[in-house]
Amino acid sequence: MKTYLECIPCFINQAFRAAKTATDDDNKIKIILDKAGAMISTIPMEQTPPETGADIYKLISDVTGDNDPYYSIKQKNITHALSLYAGLKKRVENSNDPLLTAIRLAIAGNVIDLGIDRQFDIEKDIENTLIADFAEFDYDSFKTRLDQAESILYIGDNSGEGVFDRILIEQLNKPVVFATREIPVINDITVIEAEQIGITKIAKVISSGSKAPGTILKKCSRDFVGIFERSDMVISKGQGNYESLSDSKRDIFFMLKAKCSVIAKHLNVNVGDIIFKHHKGTEI
Amino acid sequence: MKTYLECIPCFINQAFRAAKTATDDDNKIKIILDKAGAMISTIPMEQTPPETGADIYKLISDVTGDNDPYYSIKQKNITHALSLYAGLKKRVENSNDPLLTAIRLAIAGNVIDLGIDRQFDIEKDIENTLIADFAEFDYDSFKTRLDQAESILYIGDNSGEGVFDRILIEQLNKPVVFATREIPVINDITVIEAEQIGITKIAKVISSGSKAPGTILKKCSRDFVGIFERSDMVISKGQGNYESLSDSKRDIFFMLKAKCSVIAKHLNVNVGDIIFKHHKGTEI
Repeated sequence: MKTYLECIPCFINQAFRAAKTATDDDNKIKIILDKAGAMISTIPMEQTPPETGADIYKLISDVTGDNDPYYSIKQKNITHALSLYAGLKKRVENSNDPLLTAIRLAIAGNVIDLGIDRQFDIEKDIENTLIADFAEFDYDSFKTRLDQAESILYIGDNSGEGVFDRILIEQLNKPVVFATREIPVINDITVIEAEQIGITKIAKVISSGSKAPGTILKKCSRDFVGIFERSDMVISKGQGNYESLSDSKRDIFFMLKAKCSVIAKHLNVNVGDIIFKHHKGTEI
Repeated sequence: MKTYLECIPCFINQAFRAAKTATDDDNKIKIILDKAGAMISTIPMEQTPPETGADIYKLISDVTGDNDPYYSIKQKNITHALSLYAGLKKRVENSNDPLLTAIRLAIAGNVIDLGIDRQFDIEKDIENTLIADFAEFDYDSFKTRLDQAESILYIGDNSGEGVFDRILIEQLNKPVVFATREIPVINDITVIEAEQIGITKIAKVISSGSKAPGTILKKCSRDFVGIFERSDMVISKGQGNYESLSDSKRDIFFMLKAKCSVIAKHLNVNVGDIIFKHHKGTEI
């Protein structure tokens, strides 16, 4: 997905929110805004939004010296999500369709996104997502592929969301590689949080090598790209991964909540809709 | 009031919204975003936000050739407000305190602001504002000054809001000079809209000379500044006028709705609060 004009004010808003979270020093925040403003004219509009996101969050790290401004908020989100884990596991087990319930929960977890300027209420969002209509719903082809798959790559998104991903991965009951970002960017999951959440107990956890809030293949590690290409099935969580993989030639199952108007327009859905989309690559 | 860091992303958001309204040409919108981004580092933070606002809206006019992007929306707002005029006049006349009801309506009209990224529903806002608690309420001193005043300067703000200002001016029952902006900026009122609304029938209408969405005295006409200094009483409507006159040495009655967090913080009120504030200048 390319960068849309709407993304540009959003980059500045994100830079400001992250800068305020990283520092109380108004001079540093102003420097970040100055530099982010000057960056606008240099953004190649054909590149995906997470590529610019990477530059924005690197700028914040460079100016403030804080390479993980959302650390304490991430920890709060993870602790909160972990406190829900046992109850949600029971709901999955007791439901008519445990796999679908786990998928719904994994999408519900996608609201824990600090890159978006919206408040979220995870408990409320879980209840809504458990009954919401899907704007895209490719469950049948998912089940067919899942039956046949012997290797699954699951690309994680936000940190707290990882708890919900864990529930889905447990339900898949297949060998899974779970990929995280290489470094903290927004509140995205890294290997450290995947360990903390216990994903390492149920999947092979690797870094994708990505320093962006998405999966930009040309900047990912060779190991990750190999797994991406060879896995029988790829599950991609969230907006940033969708933005960077929506033009991929390979078959991917995207699970996300459409949290901004640009994504909603690109998917031809409404903001707030939940998406479970089988992206049919050209390689099959 | 100085420019706060929060104002900077807001300038970019405003530039984008106004650019999209002025043109469908994505290249021109991108040029506006590039230039607005580059402007960030040049903004003197000690200057008031409307001074930068003037530069932003001039940029849009320069790049698109459209010096009044909100023209048709303004016309729609004015037509809508005029359709409410007779009914609102009756409500004022039938109320226990017609002057106060007219003041409440004049503040309700202040929601018709296209510089702010919020939807508004004028009918609903009228009903809310007629019963809302004031966060600042200097009605007694207003009545005392009004009794004694023989000349009143009333500084208008948005175009559709002018219909509500007309109702209040009629209720003041004193000689009023109504000041507008010199040129269209956001959806602010100019002499043309004041005529259209019929304010010319009940007050002397003048341009303040301001090309900014506020009243920056050093850039206003000499005539206006003379009237500002010599009038027995000054009524200032809305945020832009508050932002540019809050440090004035003269006595001013501010009437506005706090529509953003920066204004709310500056006034020590909550976003959405209604304000009727006697700013006591140093000259008295």
